[in-house]
Amino acid sequence: MSALHLTTGAPCAPLQDGKVRIYAMRFCPYSQRALLTSAAKNVETDVVWINLKDKPEWLLEKSPGGKVPSVEIADGRVVYESLIIADYFDDAFAEPNLHSKDPVSKAVDRILVEGWGKAGSSFYQLAFGGSVDPEKIPELIKEFEGVVSTYSKELEKRGTKFFSGDERPGMLDYMIWPWFERRPVIPIFFPDAANWDEIRQNSAAIDQWYNRMKEDSAVAKYFLTPEIHHKYCITVKEGNSDFDMLTKL
Amino acid sequence: MSALHLTTGAPCAPLQDGKVRIYAMRFCPYSQRALLTSAAKNVETDVVWINLKDKPEWLLEKSPGGKVPSVEIADGRVVYESLIIADYFDDAFAEPNLHSKDPVSKAVDRILVEGWGKAGSSFYQLAFGGSVDPEKIPELIKEFEGVVSTYSKELEKRGTKFFSGDERPGMLDYMIWPWFERRPVIPIFFPDAANWDEIRQNSAAIDQWYNRMKEDSAVAKYFLTPEIHHKYCITVKEGNSDFDMLTKL
Repeated sequence: MSALHLTTGAPCAPLQDGKVRIYAMRFCPYSQRALLTSAAKNVETDVVWINLKDKPEWLLEKSPGGKVPSVEIADGRVVYESLIIADYFDDAFAEPNLHSKDPVSKAVDRILVEGWGKAGSSFYQLAFGGSVDPEKIPELIKEFEGVVSTYSKELEKRGTKFFSGDERPGMLDYMIWPWFERRPVIPIFFPDAANWDEIRQNSAAIDQWYNRMKEDSAVAKYFLTPEIHHKYCITVKEGNSDFDMLTKL
Repeated sequence: MSALHLTTGAPCAPLQDGKVRIYAMRFCPYSQRALLTSAAKNVETDVVWINLKDKPEWLLEKSPGGKVPSVEIADGRVVYESLIIADYFDDAFAEPNLHSKDPVSKAVDRILVEGWGKAGSSFYQLAFGGSVDPEKIPELIKEFEGVVSTYSKELEKRGTKFFSGDERPGMLDYMIWPWFERRPVIPIFFPDAANWDEIRQNSAAIDQWYNRMKEDSAVAKYFLTPEIHHKYCITVKEGNSDFDMLTKL
C-alpha cells in the first residue's frame, strides 16, 4: 500500500502467478474504482503504482497513452477505462454480483454511473484546480452538491442501505464512492463559500450511506481520511502532485 | 418502418402487450444501435419515431431531455443511452449472446466501441455539419478514415468474418455499423477531397466486412442505401432535417 510510484527507468516486475496486475495511482479516483471492485470480488491483486508525471516507458507499450487504471492479464492483454475494468472484474470473478441480476435495474444504475460525470468534473476543478476563479467557486460547489443531492434523493427513494439494496454495496455504490470519500475536502478548502448546513440537510440520506460505506471491507481497504486527501490536493493545486505522500506520513 | 415521426401534440399510444417500446429517429445512428441489437436478439418491438426538432411533450416526462433512443419497459421504467440499451437487450433476452463469453474479449471489444467516438465525431461534422470550413475537410476525412483503417487492421488481425468471430456479428460489429452504413456518403459529398483509392486500400478488410454485414438479417432490417443517407444528410446540412423522408420516396 505504501510502495513508491514507479517512474521512468523503473523495471517492470514479472506478473505474479494467480494474481491480477493492476496499474494504478494511489490518489486517483478512477484507479480506486478498479481497486474497490477487485477487493469486493476478492480478486488476488498485485498493484503497481505509477507516477503519472513520469511514467515508466514500458507502461506506454502496454496500454495506449499509458493509462491508469489498467489491468494486465496473464496472456498479455490489457484492459483499461475504469468502468470497463470494473465490469471485467464482475464478469470474470465469482460472487458477489456487483451488478443487479435484473437487467432493467442494472441499466438504470449504469445510467446513474454515467450521469455522475458532471459531478466529477466540477469536483475536479474545486479539489485539484490550481487557478480556479474565486468568484466561480460557489457556482462549482452548487453544481457538485446539486448532483450529490440528486443521488441522495434517489437513495432515499429506494429506501435501502446501499444503492444496490440492503445487503452490501454494488456497482453504482462503488463507482461513485471515490468522489464521496473526497467530498469532505471541499468544505476544508472553502469553509465560507457555501451554506454547508443547508447542503448537509439536502444530502442526509447519502451522508448516512457514507458512514455505512466506510464500514465495507473493500472501501476500508483503500480508505484515506479527508485530511490526507486534503493534503494531497494541496500538492496538486501547487503543481507538485506528491503521489508518494503516504510513504512519508 | 415508414410511419411519421411524432411531434408536439401527438398522443402517446399505450404500450403493446409483449412488445418492447423503442423511441427512435429513423436516421439517427445511436437509435440504430438499439434497433440493430433488438433485432439481433429477436425482441418483439414497437418502434415509435420521434421528431427531434419538435418532440411530443410526454417524451420529456419519460426520459430526461427526451432522449432517443430510449426504451420503455412495461413497469414504467425507461432505459436510455445507446450502449446501455444495447447491453440491456443482450442481458434481458435469450441467445444469441452479443458480447463475448470471455470477460477479457468482452472488455477489449468494449474499449474498441468507446474508442469509436472520435471517428463518430469527425464523421458527424462531415456528413451533417452545415458550415464546415472547406479547408478543414481533407483533415476531417483523414481523421475519420484513419480510425476506420485502425478498425480494419484490427479485423484483419483477428482473421475472422466479423469482429465477434466467424459465426455472426456481435456487439462491437453492431455498435460501429451505423457509421459504416453511412460512410459512403462522404465520397459522394467530397469526391475530390481525398485519395479514395488509397483509402480503400487501407480499409480492404473492413470493406469486405461491410458486404458481409449487409447480409445479416438485423442489419438488413434497417438498412438504408448510401443514396438515401446522402439525401437525408443534405436536408440536415440545409438546416431542415427531413425525418419523414422515407414516407415520401
